[in-house]
Amino acid sequence: MRPLDELQSLIANSVAELKFPEYPAELYEPIQYILALGGKRMRPALLLMACDLFGGDVNEAMPPALAIEVFHNFTLMHDDIMDNAPKRRGKTTVHEKWNSNVAILSGDVMLIEGYKLMMQVREDILRTVLDIFNDTAVGVCEGQQLDMTFETNIDISIEEYINMIRLKTAVVLGGALKIGALIGNADMKDADLLSEFGINLGVAFQLQDDILDVYGDPEKFGKQVGGDIISNKKTYLLIKALELVEGADAQELDQWVTYKDFDPTEKVAAVTKIYNKANIRHYAETEMHAYADKAFAALDKLNLPEENKQYLRDFADGLLVREY
Amino acid sequence: MRPLDELQSLIANSVAELKFPEYPAELYEPIQYILALGGKRMRPALLLMACDLFGGDVNEAMPPALAIEVFHNFTLMHDDIMDNAPKRRGKTTVHEKWNSNVAILSGDVMLIEGYKLMMQVREDILRTVLDIFNDTAVGVCEGQQLDMTFETNIDISIEEYINMIRLKTAVVLGGALKIGALIGNADMKDADLLSEFGINLGVAFQLQDDILDVYGDPEKFGKQVGGDIISNKKTYLLIKALELVEGADAQELDQWVTYKDFDPTEKVAAVTKIYNKANIRHYAETEMHAYADKAFAALDKLNLPEENKQYLRDFADGLLVREY
Repeated sequence: MRPLDELQSLIANSVAELKFPEYPAELYEPIQYILALGGKRMRPALLLMACDLFGGDVNEAMPPALAIEVFHNFTLMHDDIMDNAPKRRGKTTVHEKWNSNVAILSGDVMLIEGYKLMMQVREDILRTVLDIFNDTAVGVCEGQQLDMTFETNIDISIEEYINMIRLKTAVVLGGALKIGALIGNADMKDADLLSEFGINLGVAFQLQDDILDVYGDPEKFGKQVGGDIISNKKTYLLIKALELVEGADAQELDQWVTYKDFDPTEKVAAVTKIYNKANIRHYAETEMHAYADKAFAALDKLNLPEENKQYLRDFADGLLVREY
Repeated sequence: MRPLDELQSLIANSVAELKFPEYPAELYEPIQYILALGGKRMRPALLLMACDLFGGDVNEAMPPALAIEVFHNFTLMHDDIMDNAPKRRGKTTVHEKWNSNVAILSGDVMLIEGYKLMMQVREDILRTVLDIFNDTAVGVCEGQQLDMTFETNIDISIEEYINMIRLKTAVVLGGALKIGALIGNADMKDADLLSEFGINLGVAFQLQDDILDVYGDPEKFGKQVGGDIISNKKTYLLIKALELVEGADAQELDQWVTYKDFDPTEKVAAVTKIYNKANIRHYAETEMHAYADKAFAALDKLNLPEENKQYLRDFADGLLVREY
């Protein structure tokens, strides 16, 4: 099996070689621009990895892998308009550098270009691959819509939250793995198991992200501690705390969430104290481990040599750091 | 052959029966809303018509026809955001009724739903049909981008303008006809000829629209005379006039285009006078007839019974009214 970083470099090189028309410039330059911003190219690399794991040819899997990356960047371009984000990977976002109209229309073309790339598969799996891509794409849009709805909605359940992160971030991992597996000639049962692995791993990873925001070592993870707390982001931790905490602590939590003017350090310390008292970290880790366990259970059932399964286990272990 | 209005009713009924998920409501309600606004359903009816002309089963052609209608409404939803349009068919536009973010994301899902419907074709033509759909979709986006670019660009040639209207409005007619023909078992040569017919007819129709704005009988065509003149819309007439008119008339035209405060009736009369003096109507009609001729020439070459060709000729004659 090829190491993941090798697959990521393969993708990076192929993304750099992607050609789009030059005219109209306002339509295609933003596509080249956002694709050149970089990123870990994890989603397309997973597609190649799945193909490789089943003994397929990663070159055959390259156009669909690029489809996943182009699709992902389409969602980023449109999400950035919706979130009013000024920066993406430290660079000006497309709607800021050009304007919203350009970002809407360039994004639309990227989605179509994604289909064009995804269609570059063998005849016998064309319909199946496109069905998976359709479901994945709809899922991501549903997840983004739920994420926006939840922002202005106080009363969200843990179930709704997990469904949202599953749609917004996990289904695309499942879709990429499933398509890669099919290109590598896996049967549908294995492709489904690998998809299940990816989706559950994705949910676990997102829950870990929520936990790390509060409990991660900032030097290790390079993120400001408590960023989610400061911005009142509806994470697993906040939703669980709003559900569980009672009495004076509940009042205090409500106040911190409502305050417009506050000292960020003070808010992070106070909310973390409430989380600690209610054992929120424990609940979050339990949920995260439950999803990780589901991912590993699906992996175990795969009809693959033990060595290939170990590769996947190592990959998952690399994503889910057990010590913070 | 089935009459066009019968095909339009078939489409209208099938559009009304289209089902989308209920959750998340903000994502799917706008889709139902914009599809329920009505319209002539001309594009999908053309797809059915092409299938019918070649002896195909219009029921088999219904999902791809719906795909064309859903795709068309996706472009309307996004165009309305870009154009800042408050109304569409007399009703509030989606971005006004909900908000821009909802309109962006619902539009994105409509494009995907379009692909899902378009995929409901026979295995042997799946790839070909999707290739045509991809090209059509990219063309429409390119046309919309050029239209936006031209709005703020003084110096556009007639060639650029015609390329823009071809992409923005004509290629989708060509694409619909071509896909319908293939579903009806036409060979690729006939499918291409029918597409050529549709594209050239579309350009001719758009040029006629430009002419009717100034020279049409308002009672017959139900539009305000000179609306394009009042809004400085870059039509064939204005571009040709800016290219041809010289001396004092050119100065006067430039002034009318620049004025912020003016009496609309006076502006329409003055600009029309300049058009008349420079024979602009004649140039526009000559160009329109050239495209109509190309459409009829492609039609003549079709390998179809004379009766079916006559049906198409009558259809084209109905679109291109010769007397204003």
